[in-house]
Formats: sequence, structure tokens, C-alpha cells
Amino acid sequence: MEVYLDHAATTPLLPEVVETIYDAMRNINGNPSSTHKLGRIAKTKIEQARKSVASQLVASAGEIFFTSCATEANNMVLTRCIKDLGVQRIISSPIEHHCILHTLERVETEHNTKVDLLDVNPKGAINLEQLEELLAASEEKTLVCLMHVNNELGNVLDLEKVGNICQSHNALFHTDAAQSMGKYAFDLSQNLIHFLTASGHKFHAPKGIGFLYMNANTILKPMLTGGAQERNVRSGTENLHGIIGLHKAFDLAYAEVEERNRKLAELKSNMKNQLQTLIPGVLFNGTIEQQSSHILSVSFPPSPKNEMLDFLLDMENIMVSGGSACSSGSVKASHVLEAIGCDADYKTIRFSFSHINTPEEIDFTCNSLAKIFAKA
Amino acid sequence: MEVYLDHAATTPLLPEVVETIYDAMRNINGNPSSTHKLGRIAKTKIEQARKSVASQLVASAGEIFFTSCATEANNMVLTRCIKDLGVQRIISSPIEHHCILHTLERVETEHNTKVDLLDVNPKGAINLEQLEELLAASEEKTLVCLMHVNNELGNVLDLEKVGNICQSHNALFHTDAAQSMGKYAFDLSQNLIHFLTASGHKFHAPKGIGFLYMNANTILKPMLTGGAQERNVRSGTENLHGIIGLHKAFDLAYAEVEERNRKLAELKSNMKNQLQTLIPGVLFNGTIEQQSSHILSVSFPPSPKNEMLDFLLDMENIMVSGGSACSSGSVKASHVLEAIGCDADYKTIRFSFSHINTPEEIDFTCNSLAKIFAKA
Repeated sequence: MEVYLDHAATTPLLPEVVETIYDAMRNINGNPSSTHKLGRIAKTKIEQARKSVASQLVASAGEIFFTSCATEANNMVLTRCIKDLGVQRIISSPIEHHCILHTLERVETEHNTKVDLLDVNPKGAINLEQLEELLAASEEKTLVCLMHVNNELGNVLDLEKVGNICQSHNALFHTDAAQSMGKYAFDLSQNLIHFLTASGHKFHAPKGIGFLYMNANTILKPMLTGGAQERNVRSGTENLHGIIGLHKAFDLAYAEVEERNRKLAELKSNMKNQLQTLIPGVLFNGTIEQQSSHILSVSFPPSPKNEMLDFLLDMENIMVSGGSACSSGSVKASHVLEAIGCDADYKTIRFSFSHINTPEEIDFTCNSLAKIFAKA
Repeated sequence: MEVYLDHAATTPLLPEVVETIYDAMRNINGNPSSTHKLGRIAKTKIEQARKSVASQLVASAGEIFFTSCATEANNMVLTRCIKDLGVQRIISSPIEHHCILHTLERVETEHNTKVDLLDVNPKGAINLEQLEELLAASEEKTLVCLMHVNNELGNVLDLEKVGNICQSHNALFHTDAAQSMGKYAFDLSQNLIHFLTASGHKFHAPKGIGFLYMNANTILKPMLTGGAQERNVRSGTENLHGIIGLHKAFDLAYAEVEERNRKLAELKSNMKNQLQTLIPGVLFNGTIEQQSSHILSVSFPPSPKNEMLDFLLDMENIMVSGGSACSSGSVKASHVLEAIGCDADYKTIRFSFSHINTPEEIDFTCNSLAKIFAKA
């Protein structure tokens, strides 16, 4: 049995998405910027995708821009906000994705932008009182940048609450929704969120395609300049087949969103229960009450097997994310686990699910873990 | 009959490329950054592609970086050269692609970088004596940025000559090879070129994938910061299937490079000869003696049909690039045609070929043009 429980890292293409792209690769190959028939056909496909994404997010098509990935979109928001909207300060958290944190380091050094990182508690909950205090304490034009679902812990941010805090202090709000897109309902017409980024390959669309939502009132200038594609927000010939694939995967995700979420919740609860029974002392990370159903971060108690756990699971054909090792050993602790003060003697593994996982895969994984630790 | 003669805008995927990607989409879906088996399989595919590209260009694998397109790569070179290598001046030409020219406008205004554009003659030949003079006249750290094959005219730059001029004045040399990659042999081990960019969809690979060559001695810092992919030169989850497709298309292009070029030369010469016979007064743009065989820029003499020519060809199912209209009418003249002082009463069409075009398609196109103008 081969078990893939690393869906927060990337998801495989669904068969329907594969077939849609296959068909498009054979039949739709024009450059969307060309004015002739083949160009117009390609252009239409892109605009249909844009409209579908926008409609589901209760946004207008003119607010959705395709990018090569969420990383690109996040880089664009952070760097162009400073240039185009006069942002002087960015408030974020230490448990954001590296594409936020490393870009913040850059804007600090290259653009002299002030960066404040909010405190997080041992569950990874972000201190929103501190956010209010910081916003109240300064008149500087501020962008608040907090991800929707944390990719290591699964914690869900209350977007409405944060959006309202930002609104009451006249701050801009950007959220990285890479882990939540396709799993949560969004209503961007509330105008609480100014920027939102997403990545196709987290919801069974191809790698190399993502999108950026920008509120119509805060459209940034392009980071990539050139042929003025994407309404002059993102130059470069459009990733046509990627966009077509994203469209299909996105539509499928929202058509089945409730059913998928129900399945994810069952898988996660199933795994939690089994691990609690099979492995005494096991810990679950994150703000349990406010968690995405597709991520389960587990810390295994001290054991001589911990150091080899990634490898042992790999040998059992169980694919998980273990790079974020919570140990002072050779593997560096992830910045997220460090920020929440994870016990260095525990070994943390992120299991992340998709609706395509089965209860049998969960059983197999739990039994394999029990066997591994039993031999210790 | 449907005739696509707009291959400089984009090329369709070859059947072999489609099948390769189709196979990969069904079987290879890991995140190349994951350390487990599926991640390693994905990573291996990317490294095989990188090695293949590097080897053909006589570069090392550590000098090839995949990007989402040539536009992204060009933006990166121009902006990071200033930050990372202390470039104070960029010398370029007025007939570069917009992703160079618009980015130059930006570095001028946002980074205060000096930009000099070289003169071009009415054939679009770049004044290389002026380049030497400019380089000799200043000690400022300079990047010379000139494209290899001009996308509108087909003019080929003498890379060795320009590289030697740059070397003798200690300047850096960047060339956009979007139109020449897959058609020309490169030997980057000569160290005359510091940066070179290419785009997959110009040689029958997918849109949304390209690459950047950087000489080992002038590796820039990333423009996109984050997860440190591509040896920390380009963050963002890799466009795995795009890279696999690029690899296949690239290998095919170079395996057949001579045969394809012979075919392209025949198609172009065939079309030129027919047009000269059928349409009196027709002009061909560019430096005829130094031209790529895949681009034929034709100016049609004044005629009441000129204004409608794009549309009339489209009606005949002949796809060409006519947006670059050389007319003072409603359609804006392209910056390239303007730079070479194209006669505004002529109508310019770019025909661009692939080895998949046939002599019958050329006959059909020439006959359709003859019919259109005969009715005038």
C-alpha cells in the first residue's frame, strides 16, 4: 500500500483535471494576446476561468489575476504595496510561510519598510489584541499580512474578525489562502480583504499556476512588467493549460466542497482517535477548536525511533511531511514549531489529507506507526 | 484550410510533448521539495531537464534556472543586476521586447538607473560602434541588454561580436533568446554571455515555463523570495509538468535542429518568392542577410485593403500577427516598426513559421493574399 498524506505540500491532479488539460493541450494552443481566431479561443478560456473563480469568491472578474504561484503573488503584494500604496509598515506573524517571511526580510532591508511580527501562543494562535494595539499606536500606512490556514498547524484565522480590526484602523489586509482555497467559502464582496493569494496545486490543479485577488479599490501595479497581460497587472504569456486546469479543479472543489470537508473531518478525527489509543503520550499541535480538517500536526513523545521516523515512514511507503522536525538534532526545527515553542524532544510530523484518502489508508498509517514505536 | 503562421507569438504543443505531459500528469505529482519518495521522483525529473538544457547550451546544470516565462526572467535580470551586481547603467535598444523596455522604464524611475538605447538603422540593425563608444566613454558598471533574434523582424544579433565588445569593456551581457532557443546552437562556456532567457512556448513546450541561464560567476539573488527553490534563485513550487514538457520539447528541437532549420528556410524563401511575384511592390523588413528563418516581416504597399488585412486573413483562417500595424490609423504602430521608420502607408504583417508548416499552407496563404489585393 502506498499512502500519500502530504496534501498540504502538494496534491495530485484529479483524473478529470488531467483529461481536461489533455484535451486542451491537443486543441487549444493560441496565444491569448493574439487577435486572430486561435488567440480569441485561448483568451476566452482564460476569461471563463477568471469569471468562475471570481463568482465563487463573490468578487468581480476584474479583481482576479492569474500568477505562476502563490509565492509570486505574495511577493508582488508585499513589494508593490510599498511602492504603489505608500505602505510604511507591515504587521505579520512569525508563523507565516517563508514566501512571506523572507520577502518581509527583503522589504525591511531593501525598502526600509517597518515590519512587526505579532506574538503567537503555544497553540499558534495569533495575538489579535496586540494587532489592535499596534494599529492604534501609529498612523503609519499599514498592511496586515496573516495567512488564512497555517500550513504546518492547520490553524484557521478568523478573516472577518481580522478584517474588521483592519478596517476600523484603516489598514490594508492581505491573506495567503494557499491552504484554504477550494475548502472554504469566501465572500470578498464584504471588502474586508484587500489582497488574497492562492495556489492551484494545493487543490488538485497543476503546479505553476495560482491567482491573486486584489480588491478593485487597491489594484497594484505589476511586479512583472512587459506585454501588459492580465489587465496590465502581470506580464508574461499566460499559462493557458495551467489556467484551464485550475478552472476545472476549482469548479470541482466548490461543487463538492461540503462532501469533501465532511470526508476530511472524518479522516482527521479517525486518525486522531487511533493515534491517541495506539501511541501513549502523543500530542496534537495547534488551536484544536479552530482547525482546518485537512491538516493534523502530531508530536510523538521522546523515542529512539524519532530521529529515523521520516525515513521509516518513507520505507513503509507512507508520505508525510517530516522536514519540520522539532528536534535539536541534525534536522532543523521549522520556524513555525520554533515559534510555538515545541518541545525539542518530541518529533513532529504533519499529516495532511485530501478527500481522495481512504479510511484504510489511515488505518495502515496508524498501524505502521504503532509497529514502529512498539519496536523501540 | 486553417493556416497558423504566428509561431513567433506561440507554438502549439507537439504530439510527443502532449503525450509526455499526459503521462507525467497521471504518474508524477510530488512536490520536488518533499524528501519522501514522490518528492524525490519529481525532483529527479526536474534535475534531468536542467541537465539536458545545460548540456545542449554547454553550460553547467547549476547555471540553469526554471522560471514561469522569459518575461519573469528578464524582469529578474534587469532588477537584480542593479541590486546585486551594482549595475549603474543599462545599454539596450529601442527594438527589444516590451518586457525589457517597460522594465527599463521602471528601473529608470524606481531605481535611478541610467538607460541608454542604441540607434538602429532602417533595417533594424543595431549600431554596435555606438555601443563601443558608450562603453569606452564611461567607467560605470554596465549591463548590455540586446535580444538574440528580434521577434518582429527576425534580425539575428551577432552574440559573439557583442559578447567580445562587452568583455573588452568589462560590461555584463544579457540576451533574450526567446525567439532563438531551440533553433540555434549556443556555447555558453565561452563566458561571453552572463545572462540568457528563454521561453518554452516558443519551441513547442507549454506556456508558463521558461528558463534563465546565469553564468556561474554572476548568479543573482532571487527576485521571488520564499521556499528557496531552484537553488535559492527562484522561490515557488516548481511547475513540474511544465518543466517535463519543456525538457521533451527542448530535446526534440535540438535532435532535429538542422532538419527543422532547413525546412524553415525553404518555407520562408518559398513565401518570399511567391509574394514578390504575386504582389508588386511588396517589401521585406529587417537585415535580410542576418535573419532567422522562422520570421518574415512583410510590408504591403498602400491599398484600400490594408486597413482590413488582419480581419480578411482571419476570415480566410490564416493566422498571422498584424497587431504591429505600420499605419497611423486606429491600430497603433508597433514600437519596433516605429523605431525603424517604417512607411506609415504600408501595412506590415509578420509571418512566422514552424517546421510543422507545409508548402501547401504557404501556397494557400500567398494565393489568399493575391486574391485579397486583386479585389482592391
